[in-house]
Amino acid sequence: MTDLSPTLQLACDLIARPSVTPADEGCQDMMIARLEAIGFKVERLRFGEVDNFWAERGTGGTLLAFAGHTDVVPTGPAEQWRFPPFEPTLHEGMLYGRGAADMKGSLAAMVTACETFVAQHPDHPGRIGFLITSDEEGPAVDGTVKVVEWLQTNNKKIDCCLVGEPSSTHQVGDVIKNGRRGSLGAKLIVKGVQGHVAYPHLADNPIHAMAPALTELAAEMWDGGNDFFPATSFQVSNINGGTGATNVIPGDVEIVFNFRFSTEVTEAILRERTEAILKKHGLKYQVQWNLSGQPFLTRQGELVDAIVGAIEDIEGRQTELSTAGGTSDGRFIAPTGSQVVELGPVNATIHKVDECVSAADLDKLHRIYLRTLERLLLG
Amino acid sequence: MTDLSPTLQLACDLIARPSVTPADEGCQDMMIARLEAIGFKVERLRFGEVDNFWAERGTGGTLLAFAGHTDVVPTGPAEQWRFPPFEPTLHEGMLYGRGAADMKGSLAAMVTACETFVAQHPDHPGRIGFLITSDEEGPAVDGTVKVVEWLQTNNKKIDCCLVGEPSSTHQVGDVIKNGRRGSLGAKLIVKGVQGHVAYPHLADNPIHAMAPALTELAAEMWDGGNDFFPATSFQVSNINGGTGATNVIPGDVEIVFNFRFSTEVTEAILRERTEAILKKHGLKYQVQWNLSGQPFLTRQGELVDAIVGAIEDIEGRQTELSTAGGTSDGRFIAPTGSQVVELGPVNATIHKVDECVSAADLDKLHRIYLRTLERLLLG
Ligand SMILES: [Zn+2]
Ligand SMILES: [Zn+2]
Repeated sequence: MTDLSPTLQLACDLIARPSVTPADEGCQDMMIARLEAIGFKVERLRFGEVDNFWAERGTGGTLLAFAGHTDVVPTGPAEQWRFPPFEPTLHEGMLYGRGAADMKGSLAAMVTACETFVAQHPDHPGRIGFLITSDEEGPAVDGTVKVVEWLQTNNKKIDCCLVGEPSSTHQVGDVIKNGRRGSLGAKLIVKGVQGHVAYPHLADNPIHAMAPALTELAAEMWDGGNDFFPATSFQVSNINGGTGATNVIPGDVEIVFNFRFSTEVTEAILRERTEAILKKHGLKYQVQWNLSGQPFLTRQGELVDAIVGAIEDIEGRQTELSTAGGTSDGRFIAPTGSQVVELGPVNATIHKVDECVSAADLDKLHRIYLRTLERLLLG
Repeated sequence: MTDLSPTLQLACDLIARPSVTPADEGCQDMMIARLEAIGFKVERLRFGEVDNFWAERGTGGTLLAFAGHTDVVPTGPAEQWRFPPFEPTLHEGMLYGRGAADMKGSLAAMVTACETFVAQHPDHPGRIGFLITSDEEGPAVDGTVKVVEWLQTNNKKIDCCLVGEPSSTHQVGDVIKNGRRGSLGAKLIVKGVQGHVAYPHLADNPIHAMAPALTELAAEMWDGGNDFFPATSFQVSNINGGTGATNVIPGDVEIVFNFRFSTEVTEAILRERTEAILKKHGLKYQVQWNLSGQPFLTRQGELVDAIVGAIEDIEGRQTELSTAGGTSDGRFIAPTGSQVVELGPVNATIHKVDECVSAADLDKLHRIYLRTLERLLLG
């Protein structure tokens, strides 16, 4: 492959490295070399098995950080791919490979946007940062969370954070994410008394006991959402009860569920209302809660304005602000008080076989990131 | 062990053979030798991997058949047993060993009762039969069902059948079973659309969909039972849905349930009413029904009278007629038009670790079986 734009070439070089979580496979070295070459100071921050780094350029003023991850999800069966997943392939205008859309294309566009910006404005006002991890797709324990702690310990405060997650739906920049719902998970064990189906009076069937409570939980309106968030949603992902034998009433049943919640409720309210329903139905139960992320929202401000303006400048498009979809590492950065917006390519193929991204879109993304730097730092 | 009664000695000899379904391990040879010695004609009936036999004595008139099984359920962890499960052990008046109560003790009492009866009445009126299988605890496909077919092919009609299943609750003969409920099983798959918990509008959660229907099925009054049967009961034994991932809404959920039903409803009515509830809730589903046994009942007649009288003669006890509990091979014999009653020892330890039976009870059972032969055949 010759005559590629710098962004496409770097995207290909990153995709060629099979950096399945938590492996980085040298992706960060490649980014670091490019950033150091244009004057970034880099701190490598390895926590546990996870490579991370923080890079920074500039002497003071507004700090705009690009955030992202070099790790990718597993490929699934490689033989089902049209092209080998770690051999970046351009075909009919699309760049194929694991990570092309999520999010090595964005990483490449961030680096090349900074290269262009620094070449034109070597003494730019404000500061540019990079917060890069190789543990976004995994447990997310030794990644962005730890880097954010390190930043706080070192009194570094991000003002604006542009996360490269693939936010777009049909066209690059048609949707940006200015927040995300919270995610609260739970494992519920409803307890009964094991017995034989022929002697139900000696048993207490936990599957029968939980059914009315589950009916009510699934029908409950938790809130009505608001201008920024859809209504809070409750979903059961797993239910398991029974010994396998067809004549045994099991002693318990396990139900795993998840809330994606808006800013109209809180984690505490959801826990309280859930347990009130369980108690109302007289269930004997244990529940183990797991908060994956608080909801966050960047309503207005210089970051949203800069990005919305940049998309309009480059694409002539009105972008849509959305808080839908899954969680992202933005949930760890927002609590520091930073404005956080996600902007990346079209997400139609992420985490799937034949992940791909429009090659032209990556060059557009480069220009939008560059324009965002100009609008935000040059004023 | 010396000075055992013939019944106890034979019970021990049978328990010493580890005849876990479908293995017979020579138990039937032992019974056949004893029965042939007192003039029974024996047909060995092996179907598939299962040993069965039919034995008959007498030239005409009422045919009273003893029915039972030489197979036993697995021992579970043998080290949890007080005594090795296949080493029959007498301890403080109890005979320990797998099969002691279900139902090698009964088999021994049947054989010795016939030995005594034939010694006293070598030219007894009527006929005595034995219908013995080694596949009662297993799939029950190549056992009693097939022997009953063979009997019908050979124009042999059992008038009265005494099944040796352990029917007693506290004292030998306190309860006899003059019928059993029907058993109708089903595997239900409720279908939805798989998706991500963050995008519930693109999915259709089958766990949420099934909950109201399950609530209604569990609360439904199927009938009120009658003088002979408790009310029909619905029990879910297994429920399984989910990929294991906590962020995936599964595509379907599987629910295994079972009816134990009285003679107030039929298999067809239960199927119809169940599916009406599923349809009322708009479920997309597949259901696979499996009828394990129709309900059967021996209300009155010479067999009930003889057994009730025999228990009163020997134990001075009023016995209780019951149709509660699990299924038995009686379900295959009753449809031929035979009267069927189950009478055996106390069932408190069956299918458990440390299965045991009162040694004195086995001798009482021998006398009750003998008295039943006298009442029924001698009139
Ligand atoms: Zn991502
Ligand atoms: Zn049995």
